Amino acid sequence: MDQDQLRALFEQVRRGEVDADTAVGRLRHMPFEDLGFAKIDHHRGLRHGMPEVIFAKGKTPDQVSAIAEKLLEHSPNVLITRADAACAAYVAQALPAAEYMPLSGVIRFWGDRTVRGKGTIAVVCAGTSDMPVAEEAQVTAELMGNEVDAIHDIGVAGIHRLMHNRERLTQARVCVVCAGMEGALPSVVGGLVSCPVIAVPTSVGYGASFNGLAALLGMLNSCASNVTVVNIDNGFGAGYVASLINRL
Amino acid sequence: MDQDQLRALFEQVRRGEVDADTAVGRLRHMPFEDLGFAKIDHHRGLRHGMPEVIFAKGKTPDQVSAIAEKLLEHSPNVLITRADAACAAYVAQALPAAEYMPLSGVIRFWGDRTVRGKGTIAVVCAGTSDMPVAEEAQVTAELMGNEVDAIHDIGVAGIHRLMHNRERLTQARVCVVCAGMEGALPSVVGGLVSCPVIAVPTSVGYGASFNGLAALLGMLNSCASNVTVVNIDNGFGAGYVASLINRL
Amino acid sequence: MDQDQLRALFEQVRRGEVDADTAVGRLRHMPFEDLGFAKIDHHRGLRHGMPEVIFAKGKTPDQVSAIAEKLLEHSPNVLITRADAACAAYVAQALPAAEYMPLSGVIRFWGDRTVRGKGTIAVVCAGTSDMPVAEEAQVTAELMGNEVDAIHDIGVAGIHRLMHNRERLTQARVCVVCAGMEGALPSVVGGLVSCPVIAVPTSVGYGASFNGLAALLGMLNSCASNVTVVNIDNGFGAGYVASLINRL
Amino acid sequence: MDQDQLRALFEQVRRGEVDADTAVGRLRHMPFEDLGFAKIDHHRGLRHGMPEVIFAKGKTPDQVSAIAEKLLEHSPNVLITRADAACAAYVAQALPAAEYMPLSGVIRFWGDRTVRGKGTIAVVCAGTSDMPVAEEAQVTAELMGNEVDAIHDIGVAGIHRLMHNRERLTQARVCVVCAGMEGALPSVVGGLVSCPVIAVPTSVGYGASFNGLAALLGMLNSCASNVTVVNIDNGFGAGYVASLINRL
Amino acid sequence: MDQDQLRALFEQVRRGEVDADTAVGRLRHMPFEDLGFAKIDHHRGLRHGMPEVIFAKGKTPDQVSAIAEKLLEHSPNVLITRADAACAAYVAQALPAAEYMPLSGVIRFWGDRTVRGKGTIAVVCAGTSDMPVAEEAQVTAELMGNEVDAIHDIGVAGIHRLMHNRERLTQARVCVVCAGMEGALPSVVGGLVSCPVIAVPTSVGYGASFNGLAALLGMLNSCASNVTVVNIDNGFGAGYVASLINRL
Amino acid sequence: MDQDQLRALFEQVRRGEVDADTAVGRLRHMPFEDLGFAKIDHHRGLRHGMPEVIFAKGKTPDQVSAIAEKLLEHSPNVLITRADAACAAYVAQALPAAEYMPLSGVIRFWGDRTVRGKGTIAVVCAGTSDMPVAEEAQVTAELMGNEVDAIHDIGVAGIHRLMHNRERLTQARVCVVCAGMEGALPSVVGGLVSCPVIAVPTSVGYGASFNGLAALLGMLNSCASNVTVVNIDNGFGAGYVASLINRL
Amino acid sequence: MDQDQLRALFEQVRRGEVDADTAVGRLRHMPFEDLGFAKIDHHRGLRHGMPEVIFAKGKTPDQVSAIAEKLLEHSPNVLITRADAACAAYVAQALPAAEYMPLSGVIRFWGDRTVRGKGTIAVVCAGTSDMPVAEEAQVTAELMGNEVDAIHDIGVAGIHRLMHNRERLTQARVCVVCAGMEGALPSVVGGLVSCPVIAVPTSVGYGASFNGLAALLGMLNSCASNVTVVNIDNGFGAGYVASLINRL
Amino acid sequence: MDQDQLRALFEQVRRGEVDADTAVGRLRHMPFEDLGFAKIDHHRGLRHGMPEVIFAKGKTPDQVSAIAEKLLEHSPNVLITRADAACAAYVAQALPAAEYMPLSGVIRFWGDRTVRGKGTIAVVCAGTSDMPVAEEAQVTAELMGNEVDAIHDIGVAGIHRLMHNRERLTQARVCVVCAGMEGALPSVVGGLVSCPVIAVPTSVGYGASFNGLAALLGMLNSCASNVTVVNIDNGFGAGYVASLINRL
Repeated sequence: MDQDQLRALFEQVRRGEVDADTAVGRLRHMPFEDLGFAKIDHHRGLRHGMPEVIFAKGKTPDQVSAIAEKLLEHSPNVLITRADAACAAYVAQALPAAEYMPLSGVIRFWGDRTVRGKGTIAVVCAGTSDMPVAEEAQVTAELMGNEVDAIHDIGVAGIHRLMHNRERLTQARVCVVCAGMEGALPSVVGGLVSCPVIAVPTSVGYGASFNGLAALLGMLNSCASNVTVVNIDNGFGAGYVASLINRL
Repeated sequence: MDQDQLRALFEQVRRGEVDADTAVGRLRHMPFEDLGFAKIDHHRGLRHGMPEVIFAKGKTPDQVSAIAEKLLEHSPNVLITRADAACAAYVAQALPAAEYMPLSGVIRFWGDRTVRGKGTIAVVCAGTSDMPVAEEAQVTAELMGNEVDAIHDIGVAGIHRLMHNRERLTQARVCVVCAGMEGALPSVVGGLVSCPVIAVPTSVGYGASFNGLAALLGMLNSCASNVTVVNIDNGFGAGYVASLINRL
Repeated sequence: MDQDQLRALFEQVRRGEVDADTAVGRLRHMPFEDLGFAKIDHHRGLRHGMPEVIFAKGKTPDQVSAIAEKLLEHSPNVLITRADAACAAYVAQALPAAEYMPLSGVIRFWGDRTVRGKGTIAVVCAGTSDMPVAEEAQVTAELMGNEVDAIHDIGVAGIHRLMHNRERLTQARVCVVCAGMEGALPSVVGGLVSCPVIAVPTSVGYGASFNGLAALLGMLNSCASNVTVVNIDNGFGAGYVASLINRL
Repeated sequence: MDQDQLRALFEQVRRGEVDADTAVGRLRHMPFEDLGFAKIDHHRGLRHGMPEVIFAKGKTPDQVSAIAEKLLEHSPNVLITRADAACAAYVAQALPAAEYMPLSGVIRFWGDRTVRGKGTIAVVCAGTSDMPVAEEAQVTAELMGNEVDAIHDIGVAGIHRLMHNRERLTQARVCVVCAGMEGALPSVVGGLVSCPVIAVPTSVGYGASFNGLAALLGMLNSCASNVTVVNIDNGFGAGYVASLINRL
Repeated sequence: MDQDQLRALFEQVRRGEVDADTAVGRLRHMPFEDLGFAKIDHHRGLRHGMPEVIFAKGKTPDQVSAIAEKLLEHSPNVLITRADAACAAYVAQALPAAEYMPLSGVIRFWGDRTVRGKGTIAVVCAGTSDMPVAEEAQVTAELMGNEVDAIHDIGVAGIHRLMHNRERLTQARVCVVCAGMEGALPSVVGGLVSCPVIAVPTSVGYGASFNGLAALLGMLNSCASNVTVVNIDNGFGAGYVASLINRL
Repeated sequence: MDQDQLRALFEQVRRGEVDADTAVGRLRHMPFEDLGFAKIDHHRGLRHGMPEVIFAKGKTPDQVSAIAEKLLEHSPNVLITRADAACAAYVAQALPAAEYMPLSGVIRFWGDRTVRGKGTIAVVCAGTSDMPVAEEAQVTAELMGNEVDAIHDIGVAGIHRLMHNRERLTQARVCVVCAGMEGALPSVVGGLVSCPVIAVPTSVGYGASFNGLAALLGMLNSCASNVTVVNIDNGFGAGYVASLINRL
Repeated sequence: MDQDQLRALFEQVRRGEVDADTAVGRLRHMPFEDLGFAKIDHHRGLRHGMPEVIFAKGKTPDQVSAIAEKLLEHSPNVLITRADAACAAYVAQALPAAEYMPLSGVIRFWGDRTVRGKGTIAVVCAGTSDMPVAEEAQVTAELMGNEVDAIHDIGVAGIHRLMHNRERLTQARVCVVCAGMEGALPSVVGGLVSCPVIAVPTSVGYGASFNGLAALLGMLNSCASNVTVVNIDNGFGAGYVASLINRL
Repeated sequence: MDQDQLRALFEQVRRGEVDADTAVGRLRHMPFEDLGFAKIDHHRGLRHGMPEVIFAKGKTPDQVSAIAEKLLEHSPNVLITRADAACAAYVAQALPAAEYMPLSGVIRFWGDRTVRGKGTIAVVCAGTSDMPVAEEAQVTAELMGNEVDAIHDIGVAGIHRLMHNRERLTQARVCVVCAGMEGALPSVVGGLVSCPVIAVPTSVGYGASFNGLAALLGMLNSCASNVTVVNIDNGFGAGYVASLINRL
C-alpha cells in the first residue's frame, strides 16, 4: 500500500463508503514499510552531500561500471573501493570522470567539492605500508566534504616524528589513525589530542601480527579514553565516521 | 497512537473534520509500532501453547520469583532455566506449583499438559555428564506440548549402545543430540535417521575441549547433512526449535 | 550372509540338517550388516525423492562426470556443488541435461520437479555477496521438491528492506538465512517469524570477519530462540535440513 | 626547569651574565617537559568540565578513597568505576557525597551538573543483562555534562521494540549501543540513524559468546558504516567518546 | 532378543511351527545388539585384566562410592580419577581397600597385581609440577598389570638430567612423557629412544601457556617421528594406551 | 675424539707417558659425542629395517634427488613425502627405481620387502578426500616392513559401512584412522577395537573446520581411551608409530 | 662414575691391570653425565652470584620453606616468587631473614649485596597496575647484583610522562619494560634508547586484552628493532636476562 | 626552530631587543623537536656502525634501489631484507656492490667490515628449513660488526648433534636460536649456556604449527630463564638485538 492507496482509503472513509473500524482493520494488515515516505525523507537527510559507495571486490568490472553510472545520475560524488587495475581501466573508459588511486585501489568521482565539515580531519598513519588504508580514509572524508590533513610515517618507535607533528594533530577536530604491527599509534595520539580518535588497524606486519589481529587487539585495549576502533583495513569506515563527527 | 486514536482519526475523516491528505500526513509520522495489533496477534499466534521463559542466572531470587508470578497470570506453563538451589528454594516458597530439577537447574510450572506436537522428540545424550543439558532440552520440549523419548549415555565409543537404540531413534520426528568432548554423536545419529537432528555441544570435557569448543566445531563440520547446531550447553534452544519442528 | 543365505540356514534347521545351537553359533559370527535389508529399506525411505549429491571440489571433471552419470541411472535429480567452470563445461558436454549456475558453482539435473514440501521455504540473504551461498541452498531445496521464495539483499543496516518483506517471511514454513560480516540477519528474522530458522554464516567480509568466524559466532549466540546454525558457506546443508522440515 | 627558572635564564642572558651559546647549551639538556606550560594548558583545555576517573578494581578501598579525596580538591565531578560493595561502603563513609550504583559498580561525585553537550546522547542496550555496561556509559556521559536518553531492552530479536524507539534514536546527536551475545544491535541502530554510533560489546552470554568475543567481532564487521567499537564491557570509554563528540 | 530367544526361534523352525521366511522376517526387525554375545565376548577379551575406571569430577562422593562398589564385584582392580579429598574420605570409609593418592587425585583398588605387560613402561615428567599427571599415568599402567619406571624432573633446560637417565629410557618398551610449559621433552626423549612415545601436555605454566595449549601444539609438531599425543592432563589415557602397547 | 684416539690415550697411560690425572683432564674437555659409538649403535638398532625419509616440500628437485641417491647407498628403502609432479619426474629420471604416488605425493624406493611387523596395520579413512593422508601412512608402514589392510570411505554418517568392516578392524594389531571434518571416526573405531588407535586429523573440510583444527580437537577429546593423535595430515608420523608398535 | 672412579680406571690401566680396549669398553657404557665436572664447573660459573629461585605457586608453605632452607646453605641470595601471604608468614617464621613483598608476592633473602652488573637496569612500567610484575623484575635484578632504576606509571597515553624520563632511560644499560592493555610502551621506549629492551606483557586489562594476549602480540610486533619479549607476567625472566646482559 | 634560531633569540635577549617574558613566550609555542640536536646526537650515537635497513616486501624494485642508493651515501653498510629475485636483479644492476643471498632474500652492502662486537654471536638453527631465518640473523649481525658462528641443523630430536656443538655454544657471548615446528631448541640451548638466548620462532611446519604459532608459544613458555623471544621469522630483529648485546 503506497501513499496513493492510503489517500484513497481516507477518501472512501470521508465519502462514508468505508467506516472507521473497517479502515482500521485494513491498516492493521498493511505492511508499515509500504508507507515508505518517512524512511525516504530520513535517508535523504542522511545522505545529503554524502558519496555513494561501491565495494568493487567480488564484482566484475562491468558490474562496477554499471552501478557507478547509475549512482552518478543522482550523486555527483561516487566512491569505489578495493578496485584493481583492470577494474579501474574498464571504469575509466566508460566513465572518464573516474580518478584511480592505485595505492588504495580507490576510484573516485568528485563532482561536488563543497566543504561541509566544520574543521579539519587529521588522517595519520604509522608507516608507509599503512598508506593504502590511510588514503582510503582520506578520499572518503574528502568526498564527503572535509578538509583532510594527511600525516604519514610517524610511528611510535620514532616518537620525535610524532611530537614534531603535535601542533597539526591538536588542530584537528577528529583524528583517523591507521597502524599495523603493534598498532600503538592511536594510544599515543589519543594522549596528545582531546578530540575523538578513530583507530584503524591495518593488516601490515607478518608472523604474530596475524593479519592485523595484533593491531586490532592493541587498539581495543588502548589506555587512551578517546579511542574507538573500526575493522582491520577499514579506511572507508573510519573516514565515514570522521566525516559524520566533523559535521556536528 | 493506539487503536482508539486511530479509530478517532478515521471518525474525524468521516465527519469531514480532517481531509485525506492531512490524515495521511499524520499517519506518516506515527510510529508503526503503536498500531501494535498485528504484532500482538502475531505474537499470540507464535506463543500459543508455548511457555514463557526466564533465564535465572544473574537475577536475584526475588526478581526471578516476581517475574514468574507475573508470567503465570497469562501462561499456565512457565520455564525458569539456570537456577541454583537458593533461587529454587525461594521460588518454591513463593509459588508452590514450582518443580525444581537440580541436575539442569530448571524450575518448571507445568499447568497445561496438552500435547501439541505431532510426533515424538528424541532427546539423546552421549554421556551421563551431558544429562543436565539434555534435561533442559527435554523439559523445554515437554512444556511446549511434546512427547519426549529420552535416551541417555549412548556415546560413540560404545557404538553398540547406540545401535541398540536405533529403533527408537528412527521413530522420532526430530532428534536433539547433546554431546561434549569430541561431539561425534550427532554425526552418527544423523546417519541413522532421516529426520532433522539438532546438535547441542556441551561444555563437558577438559583440556583441549576448551569448554565445548571442540564439540561445537565437530558438530558444525558434521558429515551428516541433516544436522544443525545451537550454542554450547543451549539445551533450551534445542528443545525450543525441536518443538517448532514437531508442530509442523 | 545375505537374505538368501539366511533363508537357506532356516531351511536347513527346518529339515533337521542343522540344530538350533549350531544355527545360533553361525549367526553369532555373521556380520550384522550383511543382513542388510532393514538398512536398505530405511535408506530407500530416507532418500525417496531426494537428490544425490556430489561435492566437486578436489575431484577431476571426469570423476565428477562419471559419478553423476552413474547416479542419474537411479535418480532423476542430481546435485553437484562447488564446481568450477572447467568442470561444468566437461559435465555439460557429457551429460547435456546439466544446468550450470556459475554464481554458486552448482550443476543440477532436475528431471523430477514434483513438489513434495508442504509449504514454502524462504531463502534469504543479507547482501548480494551472500547470494552464491543462498543459491546453493535454494537449488538444493528445489531439487528436493520444495517451492522456494528467494529474498535477497535485506541486510540489517537497512532494516526497512527487511520489514518490507515481513509478510513473505511470515508465510514461509521454514527460513534459511544467509549472512556474512556480523551475521545479524538470522536474529532479526528469527524475531519476526515463528517457524524454524536455519542460519548460514558466509565467508563474506574481511579483516576481523576471519573468513566467516564472526558471522558464525554471532549466529550461535542469537538471542532469537528459533535459530539453529550450519557450517560457514554450507548452503547445501541448510537447504537439505529445510527440506526435511518442510516435508514433516 | 619550570617557567620561573626559564625566565631567570633569559634575565641572565639579558644582563650579560650568560652568553647565548651557554644558554642554548643549558636548554639543550633540559627535559622538554619541565617547560610544561603548553602541556598544562592543553590538559586544562582537555579536561574542562571532565570528571577525573578512578578504576577501582585491584585497588584497596582506602586507596580508592584517598585518591578520590585528592581529586575532589580540584574537580567537582569524580567517577569511580568497577567498585564492589565493600569499596563503596568505605568510600561513602569517608566521602559522604559519594553515590553508589551497585548495578554497574560506579561511584559518582556529581558536584557540577552544568550541561555542556550540545545535544542528547542515546545510551541503548539490547537486554536487561547489558544494563550494567549501559549504566557505566550513562553516568560517564552525565558527569561530563551531557543529557542522556537511556533506552533499555530493545534487542534485535524483537525488532518492534527497536522500531518503537526509532524517533528517540534519530533525535540523538550520538548513540552508544551496548549488546552481548551476537552483538547485532549496533548494526540495526546504525542503519536507522545518521549520527555516529559507538558500539560496546558486553560479556553477556555463554558458550560460544566467549565472554564477549562474538559480540566484539560482530560489531567490528558491522555492515552499517557509522559504527565504531570500544573494548568489551567498556561503558566508560563509550560514554567518554560520546561526550567528546557531543561537545563538538 | 537374547541367545535363549534366538535358540527358541530355531527350535520353532525345526519343529515346523515357524517357516523360514517368517523367521527371516523376525530377525530382520531384531536389533543386532540383542544378539549380544560377540560383543560381550569381545569386551570380555578387551577388558581382561583391565581396571574399570570412574571419572569422579562432577559426581557426588556417594555416587562414586556406589559405582566403585558395583564394579568391584566383577573387577579386582578399579581406578577412580580426579577425586578430591572429601570424595576420597567418603570412599575410604565405605570401601576400606581404597588407596588415595592426593597428588593426582587417584583412588585405586589394586586387588590383582599380576604383571601382564611384556616390558617396562617409562613414565617421565619434565618438572615436579607435572607429577600429578605422571602419577595418574603410572597408576593406570600399574593397575593394568605393567611395571613402571617413573623418572621425574628431567626437563629440557637441564639436558644433563635427561642424558643421565638415557639408559633407563632406552630400556623401556614404551614411554609416557608428561610436560607443561613449552612441552619440549617428548621431542628430546623421542630422539633418544626407538620405542613409541606417548606425549601428555600438562596445564602447568602461566600466561602464554594458555592452560596447556602451548605444550599441546609443541608436541603435535614434534620433530621426532615416534611421538603421538593425548589430551592436556590426560595421564589416564596415556597410561591406558601405553598398557595396550606393552601387552602386544 | 673417536674410539681410536681414546684407545691411544689409554695406551699412553698404560705406557706411562700420560698419568691418570692428565688423562682425566683430557677427557674432561672432550665432547661426549665424539666418543660416538653408543650413539651410533643405538641408531643402528633403531633404524634397522626402517626407511630413510625426505620431506620434499621446500627442497628443489635436484636436492631431493641428490639426498635420495645418497641414502640409497645405505638403505634399500627410501621414502620421499610431499613431492609434486615436477619433483617426481626429476627424481624418476635420475633414479629409475622411484615409484611416484600422485595422490599423496609420495615417492618410494622399496628395495627390501621383508615383512618385520608381527601383525596387520589397518589404515582407515573416513572419506575419499582423506585418502592422500591414508596413502602416506600406508606406504610408510609398508616400507617399514608391515602388512597393511587399507579400508577407505567408512565415515561415521554411514555407520553401517563401518560396522561392515568390523571384523577386519578387530583383526588389526594397530589401527591408523584418518578423518577430516568432525574427525569422529577414531572414537568409533576406538570403541570397536581393543588395540591402539593412532588418529590422524586431515585438513579436509571447509569453513569451521579451520584446516583440520576441528578434527584435531575432536580426536584429542576422544571418549575412547585407546586413541592417540598426531599432527594434521601427518600420515607419515602415524604410519611410523604404527610400525614401531607392530614390531613389539 | 665420578672423577675418582675415572682416575682409578686410569690407574688400573697404568698399572696394566686393565688394557686399553677394556677401558674404552667401560667408558663406552658410562653415562656421560657421571663424568659431571664440566657440567658442574659450567654451572658454578653460570650461577656465580645468582640467586636460587623457587616458584611458590602449587607448593605448600612447608615445601617452600624447606627448599629455601636448603638453598640458603649454599647461596646467600634466594628468591621465592608468586608466594601468597600464608606462605610468606610460614616462611618468615621459619627463616627470619625472609623479606616479603606483598605486591609481587616475592620473598627475598638478600645476604650478598655485591654489585656485579656494569651499569644500571631500568625497570619501567606503564601503569600502577603493572607494578607487581615490575617489582618481580626489579627484585630479581637486585638479587643478581644489579642497580635498578625503577620508573613507574609512564604509559603511552601521557607521552609527556615518558619524555620527562628520557634521560634516565637513555642512561640505562638495558631496559625492562612492563605493560598490559595494548602493550605499546616497549615500542616507544625502544625508539628512545639504543640499548636492548626486554618487554614484559602483563595480564592487566579486561575484555579483549584476553589476559595479556593483546599486550603480548603488540610487543612481538614492535616496530622498534631492539625489543625482545618474555612470557606474560614473567617479571622474573625479564630481570634474569637483563642481569645476564648487564654483566657482559 | 633550530639551534641557529635559538641562538639568535638569545642574542636578541642579550641585546635587549626581546625581554625575558617575550622570549619565554616564544619558546612556549616552539615545538620541542625542532631543537633537534639531542635527538640527532643520540641517533648518531645509536647508529654508529649500524647498517641502515630496507624492508623490501611491498616496495617496487626501483623504490628499493632508490632508497638503497640514498642510504649508501651516508652508510657503507646497508641491509635489504625480504627481497625476491626480481628485486635483487634490479638492485644489482643499479648498485653493483649489492650481494644477493637468495635463501633469505637478503641483499647486503658490506662496505665496512670493522668488527665492533666484543665476542662471538652464535646463530643456531634446528633444521635446514630454518636456515633462511638464520641467514637473515647472521647477515644482520655481520653487517653490524660481529663475528658469527653459524651452527645449522641441530634439532632436539637428535640431541647428540646439539651436544656435539656444546663447546661452540658455550663460547658465544650471545646466542640466536631459530626453530620451527615445536620450537624446543632455545630451551635446550638455554640450559646449556649461561649467556642470553634470543629465540626466533620460524613458520616452518604444517598443520597444527599454525605458521609458527606453536613454536612461538613454546619459546615464550621456555623453562630456561635466559630466553627472550622475537616475532615469527624475525631473523633481522634477533640479529639486531644480539649485536646490541655483543657491543656492551
